[in-house]
Amino acid sequence: MKILRTVDVADLDDIAIGGAVLGTGGGGDPYIGKLMAQQAIRKHGPVTLVDMDELADDALVVPVCMMGAPTVMTEKLPQGDELMNAFTALEKRMGRRIDAVLCAEAGGVNSTTPFVVAAASGLPLVDGDGMGRAFPELQMVTFTLSGVSATPMVLCDDKGNSIVLDTVSNAWTERLARAATIEMGGSALLAFYPMSGRVAKEAVVRGTLSLCARVGRTLRRARSAHADPVAALVDLLGAQVLFHGRIADIERRTEGGFARGQATFRGVERDAGRSLRLEFQNEFLIAERDGEVLATTPDLIGVVEADSGAPVTTDSLKYGQRLVTLAWPCHPLWRTPEGIELVGPRYFRYDVDYRPLPAG
Amino acid sequence: MKILRTVDVADLDDIAIGGAVLGTGGGGDPYIGKLMAQQAIRKHGPVTLVDMDELADDALVVPVCMMGAPTVMTEKLPQGDELMNAFTALEKRMGRRIDAVLCAEAGGVNSTTPFVVAAASGLPLVDGDGMGRAFPELQMVTFTLSGVSATPMVLCDDKGNSIVLDTVSNAWTERLARAATIEMGGSALLAFYPMSGRVAKEAVVRGTLSLCARVGRTLRRARSAHADPVAALVDLLGAQVLFHGRIADIERRTEGGFARGQATFRGVERDAGRSLRLEFQNEFLIAERDGEVLATTPDLIGVVEADSGAPVTTDSLKYGQRLVTLAWPCHPLWRTPEGIELVGPRYFRYDVDYRPLPAG
Repeated sequence: MKILRTVDVADLDDIAIGGAVLGTGGGGDPYIGKLMAQQAIRKHGPVTLVDMDELADDALVVPVCMMGAPTVMTEKLPQGDELMNAFTALEKRMGRRIDAVLCAEAGGVNSTTPFVVAAASGLPLVDGDGMGRAFPELQMVTFTLSGVSATPMVLCDDKGNSIVLDTVSNAWTERLARAATIEMGGSALLAFYPMSGRVAKEAVVRGTLSLCARVGRTLRRARSAHADPVAALVDLLGAQVLFHGRIADIERRTEGGFARGQATFRGVERDAGRSLRLEFQNEFLIAERDGEVLATTPDLIGVVEADSGAPVTTDSLKYGQRLVTLAWPCHPLWRTPEGIELVGPRYFRYDVDYRPLPAG
Repeated sequence: MKILRTVDVADLDDIAIGGAVLGTGGGGDPYIGKLMAQQAIRKHGPVTLVDMDELADDALVVPVCMMGAPTVMTEKLPQGDELMNAFTALEKRMGRRIDAVLCAEAGGVNSTTPFVVAAASGLPLVDGDGMGRAFPELQMVTFTLSGVSATPMVLCDDKGNSIVLDTVSNAWTERLARAATIEMGGSALLAFYPMSGRVAKEAVVRGTLSLCARVGRTLRRARSAHADPVAALVDLLGAQVLFHGRIADIERRTEGGFARGQATFRGVERDAGRSLRLEFQNEFLIAERDGEVLATTPDLIGVVEADSGAPVTTDSLKYGQRLVTLAWPCHPLWRTPEGIELVGPRYFRYDVDYRPLPAG
């Protein structure tokens, strides 16, 4: 197996920040997942990142992630073993050895949680994920578009409870897993979507973890070179700058296990006199300037600090912050009719059609 | 194995009615479980009832039941296979053959659901249960008092979803299973509390199914002999007549997956001028006459029609009905400090101490 890259403790700083950028406001605080992954790598050694094509067609590939409202995850740090518990319980249920770990979501937390399992199990980690970004519900992965079942799936909590689900659809998996996660205190650790290497080659968004690392590195280097980190980020992602502004109003509630709400920005500089409204459900889903929709899910909408380019999550938005809102195109798989049905604005009950952002 | 009794289609009429009497207002409509069980017996043949002592110490015994608010169960009839699905999934999870089926609860539905599995599997059914009555939560079984874990447990629904739980306590099992049951539409089919014959001999309330049959037969015979069915029932159970009255007010809500509420009776005959209030959570839990507590959980409080002695469930209480309220002593295991802690009035947040009813 050709080694694409070995990921060590220091690399996770970049990956976590990059994950938070692709996380588009959701996917949790990058600090949490990073600490867990760094601890695992310190204990077990570095993680080997592999390209999808390096895996055999009959390999068994299993994604892992943390599920729940990011606001809760931040307050309820997992003890570290729960992810491995879920992973090994699923391996037992499958009745065969798992060959590689996969990332389900590029978010602040979930871009790094798979490193915990890869380090502890000694298995390679696939350089890719199931979204190329973050989304709030667990059926919202490219795996679903390829017909992969989310179950058998294992959920574990920090108390020692575990649940194995077998469902008739990925929407049912979301429903039952969400109810369990809420009951478990708002967050749970998951191993799910077991799939063959053959299927994974079609279903996975490739290169996501390298992209996370590149995003983090780009921001870090721009800062140390006293260059403009936001400009560097825009370049790298092919993003559009939607708005320069300060938060004027923020409304947030934890509802049905999600962090839902909206943020209103008052424009500054080129956007003085205008206002921008962002709707979110864990992730930013709709950007509307003075009543005009500028970008919608599944395209990515990100908010970063104007000075540092640091990504801002929906749960850390604060009144008065000076921020830049960006948007950039999603993976082509999301732009298919099936993709739009699964994660487009109408799924989230916004009365808006998806209009693809042009490539930057 | 000595055959205690063979239960055929006709016997289930008595058992279901007796189960509804021991079900103390909860445990669902006796009609539902009976239909399922009769259908299974017609298809697979009669069920063999065995005494606990006929089982080997190393036998594997598994209780099955339906979980949910009785109000929902009545509207959402299971398709029949879900119980066997749960049972065989648990057998697979245990990695060995199950030797006997057990009844978890003597209620309108759950005194008969185990017959479905016993008939379909051809396994003997133990003449006993885990309560000697019905209770609203799944940790409320004598199995818990004997230290038996409710998990591994399997829940199945009517859509084809299934869940395997492994929990750190039976209270956690209740919490997670309740959330899943609500999400599954309000009811689910369970196989749980797998235990050895040795443990079951200590943990099971014996003779419950025969008692159900005897109660049903007693009512039926009293009616055909034009005798007083209520008097015959009082005799058989060693019950006290708490109150003769008509329902003056009934307040009912489905809350957290339970049918909760209270019923107020206006006295007639010997109780004219008095009033009785019953509190329920699926089952009747407290009986209070003119402010004086007459009986509390875990002792059994039952409401029957004055003329026919037919048991009335909390969800079929109607304004103006002429009813008799009875109470009789629970199984001695419930009168221990551990029993009172698990199912006494304070667990249900009533500010009342348990005072054992004298034997009738």
